[in-house]
Amino acid sequence: MTVRAEVASVGTELLLGQITDTNATYICQRLAECGIPVYFRQTVGDNFERVQQALRLAWSRAELVVFTGGLGPTEDDLTKEAVAAALGADLVEDAESLAHLEQFFARRGRTMTPNQRRQALLPRGAVAIPNRWGTAPGVFWEVEGRVVVLVPGVPREMRGMVDEFVVPELRRRGWVGQDVIRSRVVRTVGIGEGQLEELVRDLLHTTNPTVAPLAHLGEVHLRITARGTPAEVDRMLDEAEARLRERLGDAVYGTGEETLDAVVARLLREAKVTVAVAESCTGGLVGERLTSVPGSSAYFLGGVVAYSNGAKEDLLHVPEELLERFGAVSAEVAEAMARGARERFGADLGLAVTGVAGPGGGTEQKPVGRVFLALADRDGVHSVRADFGEEPGREGVRRLASQAALNLLRRYLMGRRPGG
Amino acid sequence: MTVRAEVASVGTELLLGQITDTNATYICQRLAECGIPVYFRQTVGDNFERVQQALRLAWSRAELVVFTGGLGPTEDDLTKEAVAAALGADLVEDAESLAHLEQFFARRGRTMTPNQRRQALLPRGAVAIPNRWGTAPGVFWEVEGRVVVLVPGVPREMRGMVDEFVVPELRRRGWVGQDVIRSRVVRTVGIGEGQLEELVRDLLHTTNPTVAPLAHLGEVHLRITARGTPAEVDRMLDEAEARLRERLGDAVYGTGEETLDAVVARLLREAKVTVAVAESCTGGLVGERLTSVPGSSAYFLGGVVAYSNGAKEDLLHVPEELLERFGAVSAEVAEAMARGARERFGADLGLAVTGVAGPGGGTEQKPVGRVFLALADRDGVHSVRADFGEEPGREGVRRLASQAALNLLRRYLMGRRPGG
Repeated sequence: MTVRAEVASVGTELLLGQITDTNATYICQRLAECGIPVYFRQTVGDNFERVQQALRLAWSRAELVVFTGGLGPTEDDLTKEAVAAALGADLVEDAESLAHLEQFFARRGRTMTPNQRRQALLPRGAVAIPNRWGTAPGVFWEVEGRVVVLVPGVPREMRGMVDEFVVPELRRRGWVGQDVIRSRVVRTVGIGEGQLEELVRDLLHTTNPTVAPLAHLGEVHLRITARGTPAEVDRMLDEAEARLRERLGDAVYGTGEETLDAVVARLLREAKVTVAVAESCTGGLVGERLTSVPGSSAYFLGGVVAYSNGAKEDLLHVPEELLERFGAVSAEVAEAMARGARERFGADLGLAVTGVAGPGGGTEQKPVGRVFLALADRDGVHSVRADFGEEPGREGVRRLASQAALNLLRRYLMGRRPGG
Repeated sequence: MTVRAEVASVGTELLLGQITDTNATYICQRLAECGIPVYFRQTVGDNFERVQQALRLAWSRAELVVFTGGLGPTEDDLTKEAVAAALGADLVEDAESLAHLEQFFARRGRTMTPNQRRQALLPRGAVAIPNRWGTAPGVFWEVEGRVVVLVPGVPREMRGMVDEFVVPELRRRGWVGQDVIRSRVVRTVGIGEGQLEELVRDLLHTTNPTVAPLAHLGEVHLRITARGTPAEVDRMLDEAEARLRERLGDAVYGTGEETLDAVVARLLREAKVTVAVAESCTGGLVGERLTSVPGSSAYFLGGVVAYSNGAKEDLLHVPEELLERFGAVSAEVAEAMARGARERFGADLGLAVTGVAGPGGGTEQKPVGRVFLALADRDGVHSVRADFGEEPGREGVRRLASQAALNLLRRYLMGRRPGG
């Protein structure tokens, strides 16, 4: 049988726009991976009548209905009561759930209130989904060949129950489709969205797999989505990734969840080289990103954030005459900063960033968004200029500058000289 | 008349869980501020029949229906066509929208495709909402006393149209309720969620205004939400904020969107003092946060990221014997780093952080999550110890350490000596 699913989120705070519904996103992702199509989602407040309406509507057009939210101990939490009433069942106390609650409160030395105890109630005939992360159990309830699932709105509890109970149970019932939908993200850096689309334009118009560009600040991702049997999907994803890599070369830095920070860290570890940084406009962001990965002390020796010219001279030994002649935002000073960082910390490589983050401080010669990056090694130093403009804003320019610095280092470590 | 609104999001990528629906959040926020209640939200894919179903259902229970998504130039974009068909209207070309599109493409030297041109179509009798941010105009359409609004799914375009056109138009029609719902966020730092709840427990159980704690990494926010006339709401928000400040003292650092970074920057500017930083485990994050605000060169002189002991000695003049005797993660070394940063940069204040971010590197004496913070001024130096444990993970410990460093500086600048 082909099962259709519907997801319903319960919570007045969603309808007031006080929180964004990431739970529905997560549940939809898992269902797509199971090959179970979702055609509708609903959102309702903590209201007995409207939760019932949502159940009845979903029941008319889906075989699997997943509710999230409204299972907790407060008086607002009434999803279970409303769903049970809509399907004509009464609630009975579940002994195991009650024992779990009693243990939970005993361990914390707290007394269980009647409202807390209410969480152990289940629609007659339903199965409790254990809550290893909090108090309210979930509900897995088969009614006349259909299933309604209730999971809490607390993201960690919801995710745990979906992954550890709901998906396995759907699989056991044979409800997981032969065809699944899976995505893979291919990550690029150093190439604009327009240029990238030119290079892969024909690949953006296929229907299975589909390829969709997703622009982020300083990087563009391409999301490949394929539908078919797990084996077909894997093959389609691999082939599409290979085609993208062929077109885009080493603008591709990774796939999936791998960040640029993690890729650069891996390359540094593999190359067994050390690095030190000198920053001005990024204020410490390049150092922060190079140390965001565990074990960074193996390759990161340190950095200097030199905001003032005095600091550039004293701590990085940038010659005063360079600062006077070319200004702090110049290729010459960036190169001197990179050499200075390398020497001061005794590192194999020195990486430097200097620029105008804005919004003030720009001139005709040195507009807001201009950044110089430099990389020094034993043999010399190389610098590049980037113009990000005013549009990204201060935080945007700083982020883009750190991105360009990490990419300069990445390309160097991949066996290219800077700029090569 | 009391107007009820319903929000419908269109996009197959929402049902696949590929993106999270922040548009519905935004629209619901604006409607709450207008005092227009939303009882239901729907989400459907890019499907002609199902968009029509969504419209019909919303039409049966709301006077104002807002669709977001599916207005663009691709073949998937069919919200306008489906809504027009469901309400029995044909589409006509809007001259102004067409002129806007023609200009848009002419300025970019591109040719307009037939699909692009389709964006200038409007349901007969509807009004176009100009798109100053992109190509697809929105639609404001009154049908038999009800209104359906279509806005694009591109967040910037959606927000612009809602703020500049939809809300003013609802106001003009007298649809903005006498009663509005507004929230204000009170931000605290340096106090745990449990302790905070103890201090304000009775305030968490009122019904108008309501006060809800929102825990973030390293800070807890309290969201006050009030319902009433604009004047009543302002009074309630002010009174509740005053009560919270009375209970929580200077754990409250700001309200609304004001970040801790911005508050510290403001205090530094007001005090006309300069600061330099010395960091180890945070890798540059404290410097990055101190420079995230425009004009930071007025108070930030620079920083040293000293990962290795050698760097701590050379660049910050931390005595070798201190490092040997107490280790790099100690109050003594933190204090020496703060003094060193102050002296090296000639700053009024020196701020230092040293700790074990993990996941490796912890010992019984110096477990993962232990951090020392120090602040030096002309008169001396003071340090504090914090234990964040392993649980927050590497990024969490780093973030918490930077948070504690900024808070130490904030409390000092508010006229307290460190730790006072």
